[in-house]
Amino acid sequence: MRIGVDLGGTNIAVGLVDEEGRIVATGSRPTKPERGYEAVAKDIADIAIELIKRSNLSGSDIKSMGIGVPGVADSERGIVIRAVNLFWTKVPLAKEIRKYIDLPIYMDNDANVAALAEAAYGAGKGSKSSVTITLGTGVGSGFILDGKIYNGAHHFAPELGHIVIGDNGIRCNCGKIGCLETYASATALIREGKKAVEKNPNSLILKFANGDINSITAKNVIDAAKQYDEQAMRIFNDYVKYLAIGIVNVINMFDPEVIILGGGVANAGDFLIKPLKKEVAENILFKDLPYADIRKAELGNDAGIIGAAILS
Amino acid sequence: MRIGVDLGGTNIAVGLVDEEGRIVATGSRPTKPERGYEAVAKDIADIAIELIKRSNLSGSDIKSMGIGVPGVADSERGIVIRAVNLFWTKVPLAKEIRKYIDLPIYMDNDANVAALAEAAYGAGKGSKSSVTITLGTGVGSGFILDGKIYNGAHHFAPELGHIVIGDNGIRCNCGKIGCLETYASATALIREGKKAVEKNPNSLILKFANGDINSITAKNVIDAAKQYDEQAMRIFNDYVKYLAIGIVNVINMFDPEVIILGGGVANAGDFLIKPLKKEVAENILFKDLPYADIRKAELGNDAGIIGAAILS
Repeated sequence: MRIGVDLGGTNIAVGLVDEEGRIVATGSRPTKPERGYEAVAKDIADIAIELIKRSNLSGSDIKSMGIGVPGVADSERGIVIRAVNLFWTKVPLAKEIRKYIDLPIYMDNDANVAALAEAAYGAGKGSKSSVTITLGTGVGSGFILDGKIYNGAHHFAPELGHIVIGDNGIRCNCGKIGCLETYASATALIREGKKAVEKNPNSLILKFANGDINSITAKNVIDAAKQYDEQAMRIFNDYVKYLAIGIVNVINMFDPEVIILGGGVANAGDFLIKPLKKEVAENILFKDLPYADIRKAELGNDAGIIGAAILS
Repeated sequence: MRIGVDLGGTNIAVGLVDEEGRIVATGSRPTKPERGYEAVAKDIADIAIELIKRSNLSGSDIKSMGIGVPGVADSERGIVIRAVNLFWTKVPLAKEIRKYIDLPIYMDNDANVAALAEAAYGAGKGSKSSVTITLGTGVGSGFILDGKIYNGAHHFAPELGHIVIGDNGIRCNCGKIGCLETYASATALIREGKKAVEKNPNSLILKFANGDINSITAKNVIDAAKQYDEQAMRIFNDYVKYLAIGIVNVINMFDPEVIILGGGVANAGDFLIKPLKKEVAENILFKDLPYADIRKAELGNDAGIIGAAILS
């Protein structure tokens, strides 16, 4: 049995995970990062101890604790190098947690951890290499090679959301223009949905958002596209086109066995993946040679806890 | 002692390489791929046997032969999967060579092989991971991780030249628009140099090309930029800007320890690397965290033979 921690800006979610990658017990508390890292570390340990007791286990039944952090982590030194949403720089998180619970502690970036879970127990099961791309508020990514997270020489690879793929003039949070995140995140669909509705208030997008332009979601745009709404279809087609450019770039860089799409937008399923595969096929370098299969993620939000638990 | 083969579209270059990565003897013949792969394989074996004899060695002194091929190769099966310039598809090259010389034969893409040489004996010596980018007629690349070539699940990684980084409207040989190769190859400098000279025949670029627009080289453009020629400076600044976008993309994908620049354009040395480092620094994701050092390649054309020789 192992402990997986999904440490987010809003919530700390902790799970007991068995040897088959199943979550058998969970607990959570609000993160409230403004309390400082010591309080967050104590909460992580407290929830873990509570879960162990609740499951009638003892500390010796637990092999390790793994933590997915919203930022850059150095697992070997047990340090969170940078977590913007938690206001953390060089935080000795592992050492702090070990004040309360005596376990080997591993950590990695949350997107890497989710990718590890998908590779081990989800859509990438059985593959030797996979890239998982999370299409949510931002665009996250993880690269799993031979069952291990590849996180680079300085622990921050891969950051697919911030590869530049065009000149759309939209400035990313990172300061650059044309990052994949500005084309392929849920946020991009919302931004374009709002723009379209401003010009065409008759669009189904606005109807699906109950007439409130400020509550438009990525799902509203996708649902309107499914109903052949002209504005939504244009936005969604562009979305697919640029996501395909990003994916072809990933294929040209990593040539993984599998590419896995997670996050809210991936819930569109075949409505997204079918045209995406077609667009990728048209833009691939070696059109008659085999390349990565593109699949929908399978583990949903559980990937964070499961992937963290199997860190080593 | 090992044998390294640099198999190009024009020439077959073969070298004997010692255990310190030094070339101790070389021989070459024209490739003439139109003869078919059997003749090319025989020539490779003939040159190798000749070099062994000339060096007063016998077959048992040679550990292995490695071949850098201008395309996609499957080393395990000894097959060149695709080499466009040689008109080869699924060619059993290793088996054919072994008809004449009994050695373990390894092969990989020529850019990967050059990257391996730089990682082992050149600008990446001592690093755990490096990406070598060759700025020549095209943009080639190799990713070396823990002393091994990373070439992906289908043997074609990485193809940095064909990652899309913008919307420049220029169609790449691969069919896509906006590939790094259309911004950052020597060919891109020549194309922009010609355009500039058509509009401004007074540019030093044309003078350095002896007044012949059709013989403009990348070096002419760089030399004119060094002399503060306005057209050339604009072209070179744009070149640096887009190459930096490509390099930041590489950093965001692979986070390597070192990035090595080879090929003709890299001969510009600090004139290229200084402004490039500045541009990369301004566009990097985590501006205060360490990231890859950018260096000039050290082995020049020898990288092809040396890298091939140390394939395993």
